[in-house]
Amino acid sequence: MISEKMIMLGKKRSVIREIFEYAKKRSNEIGRENIYDFSLGNPNVPAPSCINESIVKCIKNEDPVLLHGYTSAQGDLNVRNIISENINQKFGTVLTADNIYITVGAAASLTISINAIALPDDEFIVFTPFFPEYKIWVEAAGAKTVPVASDQDTFQVDIQKFEKAISVKTKAVIVNSPNNPSGVVLTEDTIQKLCSVMNKKSLEFGHPIYLISDEPYRELVYGNIKVPYLINYYDNTFICYSFSKALSVPGERIGYVVVSNKMENSLDAYAAICGAGRALGYVCAPSLFQQIIAKCINETTDISIYRKNRDLLYEGLTKLGFHCIRPDGAFYLFMKSMEPDANKFCEKAKKYELLLVPGDDFGSPGFVRIAYCVKTEQIINSLPAFEKLAKEYQ
Amino acid sequence: MISEKMIMLGKKRSVIREIFEYAKKRSNEIGRENIYDFSLGNPNVPAPSCINESIVKCIKNEDPVLLHGYTSAQGDLNVRNIISENINQKFGTVLTADNIYITVGAAASLTISINAIALPDDEFIVFTPFFPEYKIWVEAAGAKTVPVASDQDTFQVDIQKFEKAISVKTKAVIVNSPNNPSGVVLTEDTIQKLCSVMNKKSLEFGHPIYLISDEPYRELVYGNIKVPYLINYYDNTFICYSFSKALSVPGERIGYVVVSNKMENSLDAYAAICGAGRALGYVCAPSLFQQIIAKCINETTDISIYRKNRDLLYEGLTKLGFHCIRPDGAFYLFMKSMEPDANKFCEKAKKYELLLVPGDDFGSPGFVRIAYCVKTEQIINSLPAFEKLAKEYQ
Repeated sequence: MISEKMIMLGKKRSVIREIFEYAKKRSNEIGRENIYDFSLGNPNVPAPSCINESIVKCIKNEDPVLLHGYTSAQGDLNVRNIISENINQKFGTVLTADNIYITVGAAASLTISINAIALPDDEFIVFTPFFPEYKIWVEAAGAKTVPVASDQDTFQVDIQKFEKAISVKTKAVIVNSPNNPSGVVLTEDTIQKLCSVMNKKSLEFGHPIYLISDEPYRELVYGNIKVPYLINYYDNTFICYSFSKALSVPGERIGYVVVSNKMENSLDAYAAICGAGRALGYVCAPSLFQQIIAKCINETTDISIYRKNRDLLYEGLTKLGFHCIRPDGAFYLFMKSMEPDANKFCEKAKKYELLLVPGDDFGSPGFVRIAYCVKTEQIINSLPAFEKLAKEYQ
Repeated sequence: MISEKMIMLGKKRSVIREIFEYAKKRSNEIGRENIYDFSLGNPNVPAPSCINESIVKCIKNEDPVLLHGYTSAQGDLNVRNIISENINQKFGTVLTADNIYITVGAAASLTISINAIALPDDEFIVFTPFFPEYKIWVEAAGAKTVPVASDQDTFQVDIQKFEKAISVKTKAVIVNSPNNPSGVVLTEDTIQKLCSVMNKKSLEFGHPIYLISDEPYRELVYGNIKVPYLINYYDNTFICYSFSKALSVPGERIGYVVVSNKMENSLDAYAAICGAGRALGYVCAPSLFQQIIAKCINETTDISIYRKNRDLLYEGLTKLGFHCIRPDGAFYLFMKSMEPDANKFCEKAKKYELLLVPGDDFGSPGFVRIAYCVKTEQIINSLPAFEKLAKEYQ
């Protein structure tokens, strides 16, 4: 009599969670320092000092009834003003506080956006590899995901395949750049082609096709890489942002949705975002952390550590003969499995205490995800183990 | 093409929100001190000092990567241990951490519990007056609410009406004691009768009928009042708790669900809670505040202030000839309107700068809710205005 679907969702541990439990067990057996756990996307660089300093300041100076009290459902007006002004400064947009809805992190940004627009029978296009929870969230909203394979060399959108997959049922397209699990950043050229198809098809079908941009890794890019701000390329865009990665506060659950001011029926769309937040039980985002992110909006965690890790890992693995997709952002590297079944490859890797995640759950069998948000010495120490793994396939 | 239902939910401001906006406007016109705003259920007593002290201690002593990092979806194990032990101590239960799922506040506790069990066509019984969001949450989960009128003198459950309303479609019964908006606490006698009917009907229909206890006001009771712990009365119980009111931290969004260890298929039910949390986009409850509530679990805000307000208001209004339901808990008083249409009564009250909420949205027309989580002097100063209002009806 309980919802079987929910039981299943609760019981079926994600593959990543399984590996996490294995890592704990194995650590107890041979010591944490002898395990090369690359399974979890949990930032390992501490939050910038601004975070804890701002918390202490708020506690000292603010009225506790206000500081810990309800804010309006869409978030504190002053904080929304600071967020919209910050975006305008960075990307030349003309957003106001009324385009911003503060959320309990990226997952909430996405479930709220999906539920705001989803109707039964709707299709949401996603590009492989994609974050597996998208499917769960879209299905929970009564719609379905349509996965489209990315170009297998560049992991950019395969525009021809995309154009074939789009249909009159397509309600939205979800993009995630920098990407989890590939680390790939969509180029401006890709974005322009994608938006051009979407505009054409919206016109053809007589209804807007929405673009949902999931971008918690926006600030985590290495080198001279531009992450296009999608509101400047496509009108019917929802931006789903989170401070989890940029400020290393993933447990604090704080992010936002931007409803583009240029969206068709923008006011209705914003109202639907408020409605969906209400229906899902999100009363407001954590009030103390609303104040904190406003005070730290121009800060980021020390990204140079991730960059160093990326360089060491990409160069090290490539030298060993592994085929890796060069990641320009996030803290993941996507690597070709040396045998067709990535699950078997990951099992072999375990023999050398290397914990990798098979790409199957991300919709990309034959690949593995390596999360390099780990201590740099783990990367250095793991390379001999990767070498032994490579030798198995010579 | 956007979900009309969600637009409507986002646009249709609650009556309380309308009054809140009116209060802001009127304050600007005649000054905040001349408005007697009794509309909002926002705690006005500050959090106990333990809250801010614990925050400073955590920030000083804990590793920021762990402190602000993800916890497991069901919440930090150590915190869940502390919660279950605390409940066991207070109520003689034998819960473990595996019965506790930490949430982003009471609304999340409820949406997660409802979604864990709801199937299409299911009915959820609620007793009038009830918190209006119940209807929205139950409907968003694809089920429907069946309101049952409480006894109009005592506002206890009318057992005969309840027995008539319960059907083979009844999936769950939602109780809220101390009650928002009436302040009434369900007596042990009521609970026993309610559970007896539920046991009988579960047997008759051959499936469990769940009891969902929404109890954010558990600690806010005045005098020698017992709030029965429902797990001790009924096996198939979910407790939906929040620290918002007990610790005056409503904006921080922290609470929990207890899945009774005695529930039929308790492990499946717990898994369904985890699944529903996942489907709705709740990754984990705010990590810093998980630690804080564990450190302050035996504390409460200064409840004597609410009690004093309750006494002054109840005695004052009764003396003026108003018919009030005596509230034993929460910070609301439910009062009979002096004319059949409570909306008209509230409009007349506005003439005297008294802002009250009509009971219609709570399913109880002919009554008004007075939230007394306000400064004590507001209550004292408002009594002459109430006197003038009463005179209009003589």
